[in-house]
Amino acid sequence: MIITEVLSVGTELLMGQIANTDAQYISKRLPDAGAGVYYHTVVGDNDRRLAGCLRAALARADIVITTGGLGPTQDDLTKQTIAREFGLALEEDDESRRRIDAFFAARGKQATVNNYRQALIPRGAEVLANDHGTAPGCMIRGTGEYDGKTVIMLPGPPGELRPMFEKYVMPLYRELAGRAIVSRFVRICGKGESEVETILMDLIDGQTDPTFATYAKDGLVTVRVTASGNTEAEATEKADNGTRAICRLLGDNVYSLTDEEPEQTLIRLLKARGLTVAAAESLTGGMISQKLTSVPGASAVVCAGCVTYTDEAKQKLLGVKPDTLARFTAVSAETCREMAEGMRALSGADIAVAVTGYAGPRVSDEPVGLVYIGAAYVGNVLVKECRFTGSRERIRALTAVNAIDLTRRILLNNADFNA
Amino acid sequence: MIITEVLSVGTELLMGQIANTDAQYISKRLPDAGAGVYYHTVVGDNDRRLAGCLRAALARADIVITTGGLGPTQDDLTKQTIAREFGLALEEDDESRRRIDAFFAARGKQATVNNYRQALIPRGAEVLANDHGTAPGCMIRGTGEYDGKTVIMLPGPPGELRPMFEKYVMPLYRELAGRAIVSRFVRICGKGESEVETILMDLIDGQTDPTFATYAKDGLVTVRVTASGNTEAEATEKADNGTRAICRLLGDNVYSLTDEEPEQTLIRLLKARGLTVAAAESLTGGMISQKLTSVPGASAVVCAGCVTYTDEAKQKLLGVKPDTLARFTAVSAETCREMAEGMRALSGADIAVAVTGYAGPRVSDEPVGLVYIGAAYVGNVLVKECRFTGSRERIRALTAVNAIDLTRRILLNNADFNA
Repeated sequence: MIITEVLSVGTELLMGQIANTDAQYISKRLPDAGAGVYYHTVVGDNDRRLAGCLRAALARADIVITTGGLGPTQDDLTKQTIAREFGLALEEDDESRRRIDAFFAARGKQATVNNYRQALIPRGAEVLANDHGTAPGCMIRGTGEYDGKTVIMLPGPPGELRPMFEKYVMPLYRELAGRAIVSRFVRICGKGESEVETILMDLIDGQTDPTFATYAKDGLVTVRVTASGNTEAEATEKADNGTRAICRLLGDNVYSLTDEEPEQTLIRLLKARGLTVAAAESLTGGMISQKLTSVPGASAVVCAGCVTYTDEAKQKLLGVKPDTLARFTAVSAETCREMAEGMRALSGADIAVAVTGYAGPRVSDEPVGLVYIGAAYVGNVLVKECRFTGSRERIRALTAVNAIDLTRRILLNNADFNA
Repeated sequence: MIITEVLSVGTELLMGQIANTDAQYISKRLPDAGAGVYYHTVVGDNDRRLAGCLRAALARADIVITTGGLGPTQDDLTKQTIAREFGLALEEDDESRRRIDAFFAARGKQATVNNYRQALIPRGAEVLANDHGTAPGCMIRGTGEYDGKTVIMLPGPPGELRPMFEKYVMPLYRELAGRAIVSRFVRICGKGESEVETILMDLIDGQTDPTFATYAKDGLVTVRVTASGNTEAEATEKADNGTRAICRLLGDNVYSLTDEEPEQTLIRLLKARGLTVAAAESLTGGMISQKLTSVPGASAVVCAGCVTYTDEAKQKLLGVKPDTLARFTAVSAETCREMAEGMRALSGADIAVAVTGYAGPRVSDEPVGLVYIGAAYVGNVLVKECRFTGSRERIRALTAVNAIDLTRRILLNNADFNA
């Protein structure tokens, strides 16, 4: 296994302005390349501390991937610091300068003097071209004291780092990896992490190949199954056996066997069956539609959506009856049912999902966390009462996830959709 | 300044399953408590490596805050490892056990045996009660070798960590801080980071008190101004002078002087004026409404929203004319105008905002990134053509941010809204 360390550079990380999603992205990809990550480190735009972290990382890892600090400003000193540590001068790279000019020209702008600092590259380093921004990455293979060690410098903005990582870094790892590693995901909705662990305990305990790692977030539990083998086929078989064992124990709480979000699964199912969906949202305020339309190609199956936050909007847009609102309130199974029916009628969707509930903050004595999730489809309406706990944002997120999951279950379990 | 280090524990972080938002949260809060963060470290559920990171952190910081590894499973070993390092036995805390029982009872469930592992606390540690989950935090004040050092252990789930941090950790820091520190935010929409730095260069260069730190994300630039002083008043005056100087240079591109998102600013402005808003969304698919309704209390000003992804939905829900769609296509200033007008008529909102555009992926030869943002208000309709670059998600995010910002500018600059 190639031990890799992710060293992220940027005072904005230490100030908490952004989360370290670069380290997350890299770490998620590396197991598939046979690499392991034991540490992430974040350090500010300070060359002494950065140099210290670099030395510590080089002492315990084969490859150090740095993120950030390649920008045009004086703060950005990753290349400068690392070049000094490796005893290399910085030199302007003609091709990088040309690309910076082209980048600005394409936007009808001109590069400023500080933009050209980005074309400075440690002598002898391999340049990693940036197709989405002005900061090229680069790779230094160590010599002398650092023989056998590699430092890869990537830009901080995720939109630049990710394509660069896929284009240059993944192929490098695949080349270096000896043994085949295969990972599988089992994604679960409808059971908590502790419940899942209890159900899987006999399967997981003492297993070393495959290994099982569980984690939970916003109503979802993921089990990652990782197996190794002398051949790809051997590793694949071990991983798949582990995956099948989990599915037998968890049934239709397993919504996907790839690392996909519930909305991706749902869009895939809808597309395969030529069905359309629409969402009517009160407390989630557009989150369900936003999740569904975040999936590329969603336009084929997401026909429409309504955000009906007020009673008036529920009546005007969805045709919820004033009498229903008066008798049962906006947060009731009855209102939810009429929202789903109204959304289906308005949009012509095959299945319409509706949610209404109290996300908080509490304003009088309403039960924060009480949520109704409904779905209307081919002559049926189903409404489910849920009680969620946590912050406003968590209640909204749990509602959206469970609404999408309810839609999936209806599609799978309803004979009308399986014809 | 109290030097603090954030040490996050969890293989799920090293596997990239989640981003380290705990470190982000803590880091964002600490400057206001007079504390500085120089490093974040992430380590897996491995006691040898965790102990090594703990020693390194104690060597360079006054306070080490750990996040994660307090869960009920065998993997969770933060308390065990740290107790051993400090030579302390683990003992069951009665109150914590009682709270675990109460937590499950309130949900009609029973604690499993492994849940009670969470009630084990290093002897002599101060227990930090968890009001939102089963894992108590704790605080150890070092003696002997670790005299003057403090370790604070917090649970990993953000919904548990954040309230515990506010309730116990912030007061501790305020008590320890000597010198007054004041931070101000200047938040900017409509200029890129490089442009902002060029405009502010003379102001920022060589300044040490206040200091200016800029960062950019999804179409927004933030400048954090941090000043210190012997008194709160002295630090405040320095910080405010720095803030005013930025505002003079950037005009109405400054949308807020607090650390708030554009949707928070907009909701605040709308509330203050008693106005309502509604959004009609094509490519953003609900993101604008979702952002607006993420603000607590949004229900007073966000009346409704429509997601009209298809041509049919644009006609049915918003009354866009078939002729307009046929002549100009769905991505045109004309369609955008009719969407905004239709949304305003449907919802009765004072101002309706509409967006349509190509987010990608490219399916034929449409210009990905071409976006129209429109707003309809008191007899006016304004449509702006934008060209965004980047991924599908980035184009959607930039569209949402700019639609919200356009609405803010209209509110501020339109005499009808200032009466």
